[in-house]
Amino acid sequence: MTQAHDKKAHDKTRQLRLGFLLHGVGPGWDDWRHPDAQVDASTSFSFYKHQAQTAERGKFDYLFVADSVSINARSSPHYLNRFEPLTILSALAAVTEHIGLVGTATVSYTEPYNLARQFASLDHISGGRAGWNVVTSWLEGSAANFGKDEHLAHDVRYRLAGEYLDVVKGLWDSWEDDALVRDKASGQFLDPDKLHELNHKGEFLKVKGPLNISRSAQGQPVIFQAGSSEDGRSFAAAHADAIFTHQDNLDEARAFYADLKARARGFGRDPDTLFILPGARPVVGSTEAEAEAKYRELASLGNLENALRALGRGFNDHNFSQYDPDGPFPRHVAAEGHKSNQSQSARILALAEEGLTLREIALRSATPRGHFVGTPEQIADRFGEWLEQRGADGFNLFESLPGQLDVFVDEVVPILQRRGIYKTDYPGQTFRDTLGLDVPVNRNTLARHARSAA
Amino acid sequence: MTQAHDKKAHDKTRQLRLGFLLHGVGPGWDDWRHPDAQVDASTSFSFYKHQAQTAERGKFDYLFVADSVSINARSSPHYLNRFEPLTILSALAAVTEHIGLVGTATVSYTEPYNLARQFASLDHISGGRAGWNVVTSWLEGSAANFGKDEHLAHDVRYRLAGEYLDVVKGLWDSWEDDALVRDKASGQFLDPDKLHELNHKGEFLKVKGPLNISRSAQGQPVIFQAGSSEDGRSFAAAHADAIFTHQDNLDEARAFYADLKARARGFGRDPDTLFILPGARPVVGSTEAEAEAKYRELASLGNLENALRALGRGFNDHNFSQYDPDGPFPRHVAAEGHKSNQSQSARILALAEEGLTLREIALRSATPRGHFVGTPEQIADRFGEWLEQRGADGFNLFESLPGQLDVFVDEVVPILQRRGIYKTDYPGQTFRDTLGLDVPVNRNTLARHARSAA
Repeated sequence: MTQAHDKKAHDKTRQLRLGFLLHGVGPGWDDWRHPDAQVDASTSFSFYKHQAQTAERGKFDYLFVADSVSINARSSPHYLNRFEPLTILSALAAVTEHIGLVGTATVSYTEPYNLARQFASLDHISGGRAGWNVVTSWLEGSAANFGKDEHLAHDVRYRLAGEYLDVVKGLWDSWEDDALVRDKASGQFLDPDKLHELNHKGEFLKVKGPLNISRSAQGQPVIFQAGSSEDGRSFAAAHADAIFTHQDNLDEARAFYADLKARARGFGRDPDTLFILPGARPVVGSTEAEAEAKYRELASLGNLENALRALGRGFNDHNFSQYDPDGPFPRHVAAEGHKSNQSQSARILALAEEGLTLREIALRSATPRGHFVGTPEQIADRFGEWLEQRGADGFNLFESLPGQLDVFVDEVVPILQRRGIYKTDYPGQTFRDTLGLDVPVNRNTLARHARSAA
Repeated sequence: MTQAHDKKAHDKTRQLRLGFLLHGVGPGWDDWRHPDAQVDASTSFSFYKHQAQTAERGKFDYLFVADSVSINARSSPHYLNRFEPLTILSALAAVTEHIGLVGTATVSYTEPYNLARQFASLDHISGGRAGWNVVTSWLEGSAANFGKDEHLAHDVRYRLAGEYLDVVKGLWDSWEDDALVRDKASGQFLDPDKLHELNHKGEFLKVKGPLNISRSAQGQPVIFQAGSSEDGRSFAAAHADAIFTHQDNLDEARAFYADLKARARGFGRDPDTLFILPGARPVVGSTEAEAEAKYRELASLGNLENALRALGRGFNDHNFSQYDPDGPFPRHVAAEGHKSNQSQSARILALAEEGLTLREIALRSATPRGHFVGTPEQIADRFGEWLEQRGADGFNLFESLPGQLDVFVDEVVPILQRRGIYKTDYPGQTFRDTLGLDVPVNRNTLARHARSAA
């Protein structure tokens, strides 16, 4: 509570939050082709361990593991073959001490008792550093891996997500903090009045409880959300501690930021307890020219066939390989983009207006330049600008070229620290300590106090 | 393959296998009351880490984590509040190098895609050291935590288990070993002909695949089974690499051993590829008297109320607290024992014949003395006897008093090693290397070869 208070007092120097997305071979289709890329990184524990320890050396707030539960032979390499989030984060918990550990898991295909239990177990293993990135929808094809014929509709998925999250939080509160008496002299291990069944029966779920694991040092794992649709924004504003988002430029980011903070206020929340974290993929060079050269090196890895395939996704799976890649962008497909992904297709049509060829547009889209290419000072300037102008509370960083995380930690982090916008050490033990978030009061303890007061 | 061959050649000095059951506060109801017991051990990562590293120092074949998915306020302390198996084993993978990591998971309440994936991920994290203890049934009450009204019948559960295991093994074989081309020059990451959908549609399950993680260095996790019923024996003989069993004395153990090996032969298997591993809870003292004193110390922790409750479980939940504990055992309850657990009730009625009081019988049952109380030499003798007389291929060890694992490793292990019945080092990297088991051939590679030959 005092930490939350201190945070308010120092609002003039709001602190930048940094997360690192562990992605194995890289988030781009052809990143693995870089000469320095480790091609088996996605299932290499030593690779993950090095990245995790490097991010912790850089005092990052958290590690983030994305996920999906469906692949096919046409999937991008970074989806194909990789660690499962809860197991890899548990392993990393054993080789780190302070950094938060955020794993993605879907509400659509996992039993809530199992999910609640595994995150609670990770939370204990790590001394209170777990986070759950709640997702509802996945690639088409996922349902077939779980004996189901089709996805739930978008709005139904978010209704399920709301109920599911409530069940999971309820299970996490099964044990009041003083339930475990463990008095050797009397032989009393448990105070049975402080272990609670949930007895949930809702629209989608029926779960009795109690959970067979108690609360950790941070009470409950931190909740992340990564959807930016209307339903996703509303869910995040109501339930999440942090939202991972993609923003193309500072103006759009500021609008998104203001919208989410207003929504959080609308739900009666302190907006400072909802962190807005756009993705960023910095390319750091010792000079501006070197950084640009590195970006071009990254972009040059792109394979045209894969880039056209990725481009097609934003246009209702349109087949772009039928056109001359060195000719103009086929503007008649605009209508397909409107059906599929409006904001993305609008950006691409704007490039077509500039006269870029289909090849140039496809490759540029496959490896977006972003806003964070430059010297360490320039990257720090840009981060500071987004923070100060309330486009972001921090960033979820992707590594660009192999080794760039190390460069970022060694060269950008010290500048951010000198400027007073980034912590020089972890303030406590748990992930909530790091973020300055209060431990949530146990719902059963709350109910007990309400009964005593009545 | 050469290892399996060597094993045959050295059959005169068959090697003893040792596993260690990680149990937090201990497997007995009142173990936590020992003065040296760490009362929060079941959710203490440092406690688990110490035990895991000690067992690895003792060249144990594997660590074993039991499980259940239902508790209530009357549950024994070692069920109440503890780590979930896959997360804790993943964390231990990061702080050990050679020891196998066997986790219990039920086929009744977990999606096979999720289970296959998490074990495969643990297998990669650990460099090929994962094992899955397949269980079908749990405490009554589990179903209610998973939106279900009741357990499946016993025989139905084993039919499900057979289908489920086949699905999981099929998902584990989604990737042929040379599917990942990862050729930077050509840009080919995957050979799409070597990534396989499962397309399973069976009596209970419908799963499409492929799994989004490849095979590890040991091909597939090792399969354990822990049920000794008729259905359980048959399942183990057909499908398992190892069976964890409880045997009261060498004669019964030899009969069980012979039965299981014969069944394995009946399924066309080499019986040496099925390890029979009874549980054992050694109490080591520097003299025989000291060991006996330690056993009495352990037994004295027992709380009569809990012991009577545990005793009732073997007699159809009979309420033994209604009788004078210092009077004779109420023999009229024998019929209830016959309904509930025949072999256990027969043992207890034999104690009643000896004239023990109800209190004595309850406390002795709560803390069975077992066959492994003595000096290091005596324990080593007894282990050697069970091995040589084919009552066991090794043991699944429980810790008795706090610190006994360390004593066992320091004092018993060297004797077993000097006698040539226990390894002095790990022979390779994977759990299959340790056990001398072959890497299973990928079913899709096998099918490809069959097609080429046709």
